[in-house]
Amino acid sequence: MCFTYACLVSTQAQVLYDFAAEPGNNELSIREGETITITNQNIGGGWIEAKNSRGEVGLVPEDYIEVSNGYIYIYIYCMYIQDDEWDEEWDDVKSSGGYAESEAGEGGAINRGGAHDWTYIQEVLITISFLYDVDVYTVYTVFQSGEVGPVWAYPDYQLDCVVADPKKGSKLYGLKSYIEYQVTPTTTNKPVNHRYKHFDWLYERLLEKFGSAIPIPCLPDKQVAGRFEDEFIKMRMERLQGWMTRMCRHPVISSSEVFQLFLSYKDEKDWKMGKRKAEKDETVGVMVFSTIEPEGLPDLDLIEVEQKCDQFNRFTRAMDDGVKDLLTIGNEHWKRCTGPLPKEYQRIGKAFQNLSSVFTSSGYEGEAALTDALTAAGKTYEEIAQMVAEQPKKDLHFLMETNNEYKGLLGCFPDTVGVHKAAIEKVKEADKLVAAGKITPSDKTTMSKRASTMSYSLQAEMNHFHSNRIYDYNRVMQQYLEQQVKFYEMIADKLRHAHSQFTTM
Amino acid sequence: MCFTYACLVSTQAQVLYDFAAEPGNNELSIREGETITITNQNIGGGWIEAKNSRGEVGLVPEDYIEVSNGYIYIYIYCMYIQDDEWDEEWDDVKSSGGYAESEAGEGGAINRGGAHDWTYIQEVLITISFLYDVDVYTVYTVFQSGEVGPVWAYPDYQLDCVVADPKKGSKLYGLKSYIEYQVTPTTTNKPVNHRYKHFDWLYERLLEKFGSAIPIPCLPDKQVAGRFEDEFIKMRMERLQGWMTRMCRHPVISSSEVFQLFLSYKDEKDWKMGKRKAEKDETVGVMVFSTIEPEGLPDLDLIEVEQKCDQFNRFTRAMDDGVKDLLTIGNEHWKRCTGPLPKEYQRIGKAFQNLSSVFTSSGYEGEAALTDALTAAGKTYEEIAQMVAEQPKKDLHFLMETNNEYKGLLGCFPDTVGVHKAAIEKVKEADKLVAAGKITPSDKTTMSKRASTMSYSLQAEMNHFHSNRIYDYNRVMQQYLEQQVKFYEMIADKLRHAHSQFTTM
Repeated sequence: MCFTYACLVSTQAQVLYDFAAEPGNNELSIREGETITITNQNIGGGWIEAKNSRGEVGLVPEDYIEVSNGYIYIYIYCMYIQDDEWDEEWDDVKSSGGYAESEAGEGGAINRGGAHDWTYIQEVLITISFLYDVDVYTVYTVFQSGEVGPVWAYPDYQLDCVVADPKKGSKLYGLKSYIEYQVTPTTTNKPVNHRYKHFDWLYERLLEKFGSAIPIPCLPDKQVAGRFEDEFIKMRMERLQGWMTRMCRHPVISSSEVFQLFLSYKDEKDWKMGKRKAEKDETVGVMVFSTIEPEGLPDLDLIEVEQKCDQFNRFTRAMDDGVKDLLTIGNEHWKRCTGPLPKEYQRIGKAFQNLSSVFTSSGYEGEAALTDALTAAGKTYEEIAQMVAEQPKKDLHFLMETNNEYKGLLGCFPDTVGVHKAAIEKVKEADKLVAAGKITPSDKTTMSKRASTMSYSLQAEMNHFHSNRIYDYNRVMQQYLEQQVKFYEMIADKLRHAHSQFTTM
Repeated sequence: MCFTYACLVSTQAQVLYDFAAEPGNNELSIREGETITITNQNIGGGWIEAKNSRGEVGLVPEDYIEVSNGYIYIYIYCMYIQDDEWDEEWDDVKSSGGYAESEAGEGGAINRGGAHDWTYIQEVLITISFLYDVDVYTVYTVFQSGEVGPVWAYPDYQLDCVVADPKKGSKLYGLKSYIEYQVTPTTTNKPVNHRYKHFDWLYERLLEKFGSAIPIPCLPDKQVAGRFEDEFIKMRMERLQGWMTRMCRHPVISSSEVFQLFLSYKDEKDWKMGKRKAEKDETVGVMVFSTIEPEGLPDLDLIEVEQKCDQFNRFTRAMDDGVKDLLTIGNEHWKRCTGPLPKEYQRIGKAFQNLSSVFTSSGYEGEAALTDALTAAGKTYEEIAQMVAEQPKKDLHFLMETNNEYKGLLGCFPDTVGVHKAAIEKVKEADKLVAAGKITPSDKTTMSKRASTMSYSLQAEMNHFHSNRIYDYNRVMQQYLEQQVKFYEMIADKLRHAHSQFTTM
C-alpha cells in the first residue's frame, strides 16, 4: 500500500508531465510546465483537485505535479505486500555472496522505492504541522551527555538475541522449501522462528519508520541460487545475527513495537494482528521526528545545526572511503591467501619431499636422518599451506564482515543527512516565507525548533554510531590480531619442530 | 695451446671429412668414408702419417679422421691463453646474475671446448697404455670405507679459505679497473689477492686436469655490466667463497699443485713459473686416472662397475630434476615475497592507518585509544611488509645458493659418468678385440683393471659428493628453518604488541 499525506500551505503547483483527462471522470488535462492551483488535496487514491489558468477545475494525478512552494507533500515509503502470501520468488534477486560481488550492492537503504522524495524539504516541514496530530506511541528521548553531547536514552538492560539453528521447512505439501532460523531474545529467552523473508519484512518496516533519523543497514544479500547449501546458510545466519545484534543495540529500534513483535510470538493470530498494525503505522518517514524529544536541551542555532550536519557528512563519507579501501585490499589479500600463496607453500613442501625421496635413492649409508628431516620439513610446509588457506576464515573474515556491515551502514547516511540538510535550507528561507506572509512568525519558531530537534536526533545517532564503531573496531581488531598472532606462532612452532629434526654434524 | 696424444694399438682409421692435399707438402688427399692405415702417429702439429688403400702415403690432419678401433686418441682440453696479458674483454660474456636468468646457464663444465671428444672411449683407453709413462706428481688413493665403500684418502686437516675484502684495483695508469679479492687459506693464514680472472684460470686448469674424474662446478657467472656495483661484488664474492670452499673440501683438488699455487704467493716470478708449469701439466683429462690408486681394493667385475655407473647416473639425474624444481619454486616464491606480498601488507598497513586518521576526524570524545592502536597496528603491518621483503635474503637466498651450486655440480656429472660408460663399453668389446688380434689378452686384463680403477674413482667421488651433500643440505635446511622460525616469531611478537594496544570495553 501507498500512503500519501499532503498539507496545504500554498496552492501553487508545477505540472511535471502531460496528463490527458479521461472524459466523464471529472479529470483535468494538464501539460508539462503549466502552473496550476490546488483546490482540494483531500481526494485520496492518488488524486488531487486542481484548477488551471483558464479556471477549469478537475482531478489530476498527484505524482504528475510538484508543489511549487509551501505545499507539503509526503510520500511514505511504498511497498507492495501480499500480506502473508508472499511468493517465494519475490526474493529471487540475482546476487551472490562473498565480498567481491557484494561490493557493487551499495548499502543505500533509502534508495529503494521513492527515496529521493523523502529528502525534499516539503516532507520535512510536514512535521511542523503534523507533529501534534500524530498518535504518538513512543517518545524517544535525547539526553545531553557530559562527554560526547546529545545521546539517546539507553535502556538499563542491553537487549540482544541469538540467531541459530537453521532448519529446513516446507509448505504446500513439500512443494516449497525454506530455511527457518531460530531467534532467541536474551530478555525472554523464548525462541521464535523466522524465515529470511520475515527478517526482510522487519527491515522494510524499520526502514519505513526510522529511515529518516536512523540509518537502517541492509539485510545480507538476497540470494536464491545455493540458498540451501550449508555454507550459504551458515553465512546468512551469521550475517542475520550481526544485523539483529546491531538492531538490538539501538535504543530506539530495539524498543519499537515492530521490533518487539518480531522477537515475540504468542500465536498466529497475535502475530498477524501485530503485522497488520505495523504496516498501518503512520508515524513513519520524517514523522518519526515528531516522536523525538530533546529533553531539557536548548534550541540550537542554525549555524550550529549546519556545522554538525556538515561534520557528520564529511566523516561518514571519509569513513565510507576508508572502509571500501580496506574491503578491496582485504579481498585481494583473501584471494592471495586462499589461492597462490598456499599453492606456493604446497609446492615448496612437495619439492622438499621430492628431494628427500631422491636422496633416499642414493644408496648412500647414513642418509636416513637427512631424508626423514627433509620429508618432515616438506610436510610442515604442506601443513602451513593448509593453515594459510584456512586462516582468512579465522580472522580476515570477521574484519571483512565488520567492514562490510559498516559499508552498508555508511551507505544509509547520505540519505539520513540529506533530510537534515534539506530542513536547514528550508529554515534558512523562513524569514522570506514570513515576509511573503506564507508562514507565520510562530511557524518560523516551530521550524527552527524542529530543525534543532532533528539536529539533536542526528547528533544522538552519530554518537550512537561512534560508540558502536569504537566498540566494534576494537573488538574486531583484537580478534583479528589475536588470530594472526596464533597463526604466526603456530607456524613458528611447526617450523621449530621441523628444524629440530636436522642434525648438526 | 692444444695438446694431442695418440697411441698405436691398431692402424685402421675412418676418414670423417674430405681433405685435399696441398702439393709439395707431403700431404695425402682423403675422402669421407675412406678407410686408411696409420703409419706414423708421432708427427705432431695436428698431423698424422697415413696410407690409403692404393698404397699412397702422406700427412693427413688428425681431426679429419676417426680411429676405427684400437687407436687411442686424446684431445686434451684446449684453451687459448695469452699468458698474463689477458684482455679485460675476454670475460665480457653476456649474462646477468640472479636465479631467474642463471637457470639457462647449465653447469656442464665439460661442455666447453671439445668436451664430446673426451667421452670417446679411445680417450679413455689411452690410460691403459700411458699409465706408467706419465710423470706422476701425486697419486690419489681410494680406500675402502666400511660404511660407504670406496672413499678418497682425506687429509687430517680440512683445508678451507676465506674470500673477503674486495678492493678496486687498476692498471695501465687507471685505464683498466678490476676488483681484487683477498683469499686467505686457513693453513697459512697468509692472504693472497686474486681477480676474478685468476679464479677463472684456476677453474680452467682444474677442469682440464680433473674434469674426467671429478665434477668441477662452474665459477659464478661472468658478467661485465654492473660488476663494480657493491651488490654484485658482494654476491660474486659470496659465490667465489662457496666455490673455493667446495674445492678446498675435495681431497684430490685441494692437494693438487695448481690449487696450492693459487692459495700461495711468494713473488711474481714464482707465481708466473707456477702458472706456466700448470699450463704445461700433461697429467690432464683422462690421464688423471693414471694417478689414482685403489689401495688394496679387488678389481671389480664389469657388471658391478656398470651397475654403480647406472645408479649414479640415475641418482644425479633425479637430483638434478629435484634441484631445478626447487630452484624454480624458490624463484617464484622469492618474487612473491619481494613483490606483491609486501605490497599487500603495506596496503593493509596503510588502510588501518587511513581508517585511524578518519576516526580521528570524528570529533568524538574517547576516540584516542582506538586511533592510536589502529595506527600502531597499521605501522606494524608496514613493518611486516618490510620484513617479508627482506626475509628471502636471510633464508631463501642460502637455500637457493646451495641448490644453485648443486645444479652446477650436477650438470658436470653426465660428462664424468659418460667417460665411465664409454670405458665399460670398450671393456665389453675386449674379447672381440683379443679374438681379432687387435689387443693382447694382457691388454684386456689391463683394460678391466683400469675400468675397475675408474669405477672406484667414481664411487669415491660419489661418496664424497654424498657426504658433502648431506652436510650441505643439513646445514642449509637448518639455516633456512632457523631463519624462518625467527621470522614468524618476530611477526607474532610484533602483532602481539599491536594487539595489546586495543582495549576491551
